[in-house]
Amino acid sequence: MDGNTAPHPAIHRMLHPRSIAVLGASNNPVKLSGRAIALMKRFGYIGRLLPINPVRAQVQGLPAYPGLADVDGDIDLAMIMLPADQVVAAVRDCAERGIPVAIVGAAGFAELDEAGARLQQQLSEVVADTGIRLLGPNCLGMFSLKDRAMPTFTSAMDGDFQLREGALAFVSQSGAFGTFIFSAAQHAGLGISHFLNTGNEADLSVGELLGGLVELDEVRVLMAYLEGVHDGRELLAVARRAHELDKPVLVVKVGRSEAGARAAASHTASLAGEDAVFDGVVRQFGVVRVDGMEQLLDVGMIFADGRRTRGRRLTTLSLSGGAGVLMADAAAHHGLDVIPWEPEWQTRMAEVLPAFGSARNPVDLTANLISDPAMLRRALEIAVEHPGSDVIAVLLGNADHAADELIGAIEHAYRSTDRPLVVVWTGGSGRPREWLRELGIPCFTDPGRAAAALGALASYSLRLAPPSPQRPRDIDRRAVRAILCEARDHGRAQLDEHESSRLIAAYGVPCAGAFPAKDPPSAVAAAHDLGTPVAVKLLSRTIGHKSDVGGVRLNLSTEAEVLAAADDLLRLDPDAKLLVQRMSSGTELIVGIKRDPAFGPVVVVGLGGVLVEVLADSRVGVAPLDTASAKRLLRSLRGSRIFDGVRGEPARDLDAAADAVSRLSWLAHDLADDLEELDVNPLLVDHNGAVAVDCLAVLT
Amino acid sequence: MDGNTAPHPAIHRMLHPRSIAVLGASNNPVKLSGRAIALMKRFGYIGRLLPINPVRAQVQGLPAYPGLADVDGDIDLAMIMLPADQVVAAVRDCAERGIPVAIVGAAGFAELDEAGARLQQQLSEVVADTGIRLLGPNCLGMFSLKDRAMPTFTSAMDGDFQLREGALAFVSQSGAFGTFIFSAAQHAGLGISHFLNTGNEADLSVGELLGGLVELDEVRVLMAYLEGVHDGRELLAVARRAHELDKPVLVVKVGRSEAGARAAASHTASLAGEDAVFDGVVRQFGVVRVDGMEQLLDVGMIFADGRRTRGRRLTTLSLSGGAGVLMADAAAHHGLDVIPWEPEWQTRMAEVLPAFGSARNPVDLTANLISDPAMLRRALEIAVEHPGSDVIAVLLGNADHAADELIGAIEHAYRSTDRPLVVVWTGGSGRPREWLRELGIPCFTDPGRAAAALGALASYSLRLAPPSPQRPRDIDRRAVRAILCEARDHGRAQLDEHESSRLIAAYGVPCAGAFPAKDPPSAVAAAHDLGTPVAVKLLSRTIGHKSDVGGVRLNLSTEAEVLAAADDLLRLDPDAKLLVQRMSSGTELIVGIKRDPAFGPVVVVGLGGVLVEVLADSRVGVAPLDTASAKRLLRSLRGSRIFDGVRGEPARDLDAAADAVSRLSWLAHDLADDLEELDVNPLLVDHNGAVAVDCLAVLT
Repeated sequence: MDGNTAPHPAIHRMLHPRSIAVLGASNNPVKLSGRAIALMKRFGYIGRLLPINPVRAQVQGLPAYPGLADVDGDIDLAMIMLPADQVVAAVRDCAERGIPVAIVGAAGFAELDEAGARLQQQLSEVVADTGIRLLGPNCLGMFSLKDRAMPTFTSAMDGDFQLREGALAFVSQSGAFGTFIFSAAQHAGLGISHFLNTGNEADLSVGELLGGLVELDEVRVLMAYLEGVHDGRELLAVARRAHELDKPVLVVKVGRSEAGARAAASHTASLAGEDAVFDGVVRQFGVVRVDGMEQLLDVGMIFADGRRTRGRRLTTLSLSGGAGVLMADAAAHHGLDVIPWEPEWQTRMAEVLPAFGSARNPVDLTANLISDPAMLRRALEIAVEHPGSDVIAVLLGNADHAADELIGAIEHAYRSTDRPLVVVWTGGSGRPREWLRELGIPCFTDPGRAAAALGALASYSLRLAPPSPQRPRDIDRRAVRAILCEARDHGRAQLDEHESSRLIAAYGVPCAGAFPAKDPPSAVAAAHDLGTPVAVKLLSRTIGHKSDVGGVRLNLSTEAEVLAAADDLLRLDPDAKLLVQRMSSGTELIVGIKRDPAFGPVVVVGLGGVLVEVLADSRVGVAPLDTASAKRLLRSLRGSRIFDGVRGEPARDLDAAADAVSRLSWLAHDLADDLEELDVNPLLVDHNGAVAVDCLAVLT
Repeated sequence: MDGNTAPHPAIHRMLHPRSIAVLGASNNPVKLSGRAIALMKRFGYIGRLLPINPVRAQVQGLPAYPGLADVDGDIDLAMIMLPADQVVAAVRDCAERGIPVAIVGAAGFAELDEAGARLQQQLSEVVADTGIRLLGPNCLGMFSLKDRAMPTFTSAMDGDFQLREGALAFVSQSGAFGTFIFSAAQHAGLGISHFLNTGNEADLSVGELLGGLVELDEVRVLMAYLEGVHDGRELLAVARRAHELDKPVLVVKVGRSEAGARAAASHTASLAGEDAVFDGVVRQFGVVRVDGMEQLLDVGMIFADGRRTRGRRLTTLSLSGGAGVLMADAAAHHGLDVIPWEPEWQTRMAEVLPAFGSARNPVDLTANLISDPAMLRRALEIAVEHPGSDVIAVLLGNADHAADELIGAIEHAYRSTDRPLVVVWTGGSGRPREWLRELGIPCFTDPGRAAAALGALASYSLRLAPPSPQRPRDIDRRAVRAILCEARDHGRAQLDEHESSRLIAAYGVPCAGAFPAKDPPSAVAAAHDLGTPVAVKLLSRTIGHKSDVGGVRLNLSTEAEVLAAADDLLRLDPDAKLLVQRMSSGTELIVGIKRDPAFGPVVVVGLGGVLVEVLADSRVGVAPLDTASAKRLLRSLRGSRIFDGVRGEPARDLDAAADAVSRLSWLAHDLADDLEELDVNPLLVDHNGAVAVDCLAVLT
């Protein structure tokens, strides 16, 4: 186990509790405070179930205890079903009794009003004082299906409900919506290992719980529904650990839109955070982000059997040519390759097909399959044998009466290979779908949804490791300290261009050659030393955005031009100095550093020039980034074709640009506490290098 | 009825046939040739069912006729269930008997091989000779649910199948996939009026059939699955007519991707066509294009009740705050507006909510709704009253035991308004969803899918009318004729730049001032007349792409520069002339004209310069376009922000650009038979006009 991500032992006990005390347990199984006992009785919790009730000797037929002190032996978990005003004292009691974790179901805390927020603050103080861990308040609780441990008052399992145990663990910030998803998953035949609802997250967060779940052998897929991120770095640690263990992390994170972010804020009083940052995080750390509920279940289903792809090549066998065509479109859209088979393989496949079938891939088995279902077995054998079948999809529809034999053929093929094989069974009664899911074979209702899930599977299977950047060795720490101290000493937060450039130069970021000059004659001398053409810029400690005030003169070649420009500029601010800089050219990038409240220092890259205004195209990475990740980040820009060289220009030196971005990310990381923000605008990238031409840093 | 789109009378009889002859009807209800009789007996066809069988007096208990001649009275429709080699003769018999339409089920025609293609050619000849109309061959047939007319051998209704009659008509080029969709639709509770499968389309096409269906009162929504378009202009006529009648046309058209187009070609031997053209067509004519099967059903469901929106403002009431947040994101993504309610309305709503609910919109009813379902009725009354509720969505989940009262409240609200109201009911047993659909209330399983369907509904409701362009009055037809004749007379298909520019100038497209010059001195004189700076270009009838050979010199200001450039250029081709042109500036557009095999002349617009290479951003419109449509086309470019003026430049004169595009579209339309292609590259658009700077036309 990786030391950094070892889950809190309390979490471990909570996820498989050997004993559960229910404080305020009601004798009425229908009341919220009676439901947990009723559920665990109904489904058969394997541990000790301990109703705590000061006025009853029995609760729902179980012996009850007047107080925690009356229970013998360890208690792994307490579920507190008391009104909000009794919760703080109850949690303290639990801590004193040595219970490692308590679940608080009651609402009436920070989500309600100021008084509730104060109550929640008291809860946090008890947690800090005693070391007890806490799920909630304002949460539905949790369940562990293997143990049938169900300290929850959800109604999701009411009625004629069949529990399906499985490899998917699900943590949700939202209670009701979490149980909708749980219920939909179970009805879709998806087996679940754990469900946890974090509610107000006064203590335990989604990230910490995922960190506990990822270590459990029976958990193979982690799923989360997020409205806000409180502990970004914790989430990154989980993502790293999940990558090592090859357990995908699937996340629905709302707040993509302004309307969604506003709604999330009003729902849980938690900020959704900047969505672009979250998007950058998931891209960088191999988290699978999905945007909808059914999509989460689709992707969960495709990951549940643990199979991975070796490539992106999809082989499709279809009862309907039309469905095969639709699948080809959808597969291409989701990044799969649909490649016609080689002639010799087509010949082999054609032998099992009717004359009007197609053996190209998508393979059209034709509706003859309904009268000759044995054809599927033969066709699947060839598909499994074909070396280009990284993934196999079987498209069927209706045909209930042939389901026995068709499913037999599919199961035979599924067991004969370790490659992913999925079924899309459209229309009909739905019973064949249920049957396939019982067999553990992923089965979809729609070709497009199957293609989306397969695309996610392929991307995850072929993922790169999360970045493990090495700090560059050539950082001039003394120069960095000197620049920071100089500014701090003078009480300045805003560094001027020359200081900012020296700061990034100390991290090895190439900067356009430049000399400060105190007056027009020294500007001329500087231009002479640098070689023309040059730019002359105002180096003012009062004027921030110098180009807005005409403080930049470009492309000056003659002595007279430099003199005149210097004179003009100094008229803008007589106390200012000048910066004389060698002119550079290339594709304009903008590289920024800022601090994200959830994830800490991040780097934002974007295209500059006309493109930035037309495309508003930028991407975010979490610092630090290695050069390979920085390069991927640049390549992920929508306008990244410009790096290939347009209009006859040579390709841009993306390695140099990525190196600069990586070095800036180290600066962001190392100076996380000192640096408020920093902008390099532009970083000019030509065919043979990248150079920062302007830079502005603001200290905290 | 619009004269242009009046359906063939034969189609009208086919869609509601009073009598159906089945040629080759088998006594065995399980055989393909026995299924149509069996289905119509089972479901109770209301017309005369006429088995034609030369060897049996009875077929499946019905009196059979030896031949068509033995039947008394009219026969509206013949279904031919004979082997391919007997079909041509049978169709001729039907025509001679006066039957207006025949359906040919047999495969073995153009989809199979050369011999089959010849057989299909013979079929087409019989159609041309006799005037009979033909569905197929290689099709599953059709059904009209109102009549229970089912001349089809599909197995989609096998087993315990409940027919749901309704307002959706569905035409599919694919047989099996069409019936998968039909079956999925019926299981989802969607009522269907007609299903038709066109198969090889030797005669009746999807467009013609939709043209018949759109006129039927009981049909309120048209749906089609397309793999290729044979009759683009027919489809446009249907779209116009459907717009007039306020009947949405929903289309799944495969072949978006290269892989999909290739698969479609191999499936039906029909070309998918250029997808960008189809995309342009649907945008221009208000067709609703969807990309997947379940999406088609979702959108079909939302249109089925005939309600339209007045705006894009969505009011959401949710049992779960989390579901409300997810819905807000999805709604924003699909173009709906989620606007927090005004304080006075929030106050009203808050009165019916628990304290920890939210009245902002999305309204969070909280899980208290489960114990107090009456809250939904009160909340919905306020939502319906709120003037900003263009669309209302109710999000529920699980809660089967409260379904009675919740559905009662929903039905009450639904009947109290004519605005769209949809339900998303996630998880649970699924019975509440079925119940709502029985009531005709759209009900989804997933917030994202509901939002996508609502977005389509809003876009359709607020659609603009298809363009009805007026030909510009100032076209110089004489000049056009002269240019074409001159080229034709000399056997030239390729017009030079000067001729091409005169051609578009004759259509009123502004061209940069230019004079041809035969030698360097005349070039100098031309430059003098035009005013400098000028460009000098090679005007060669042998060199097509002059810029590739260095045949363009820009920004020439002095006499010496013009002379030198002219000398240089004439060295490239001593037989050439020169073109001297006034320099222009502005945002670069590329406007092309080409001929699409399905839709005829089309106009392609794109951004030029760096952007065209970085974005590969272009859009297609069908000629002719009015200026409003041309402007929408330009605005739909992904990089269209550039028209607003970037980096401090003034906004571009989009009206002038749209006028030029519209005029070029008229040229495309009028010269459809003469013009192979034409490119204006660039059309320069500045703040005060647009001007064509280079143009090249190729005649047929």
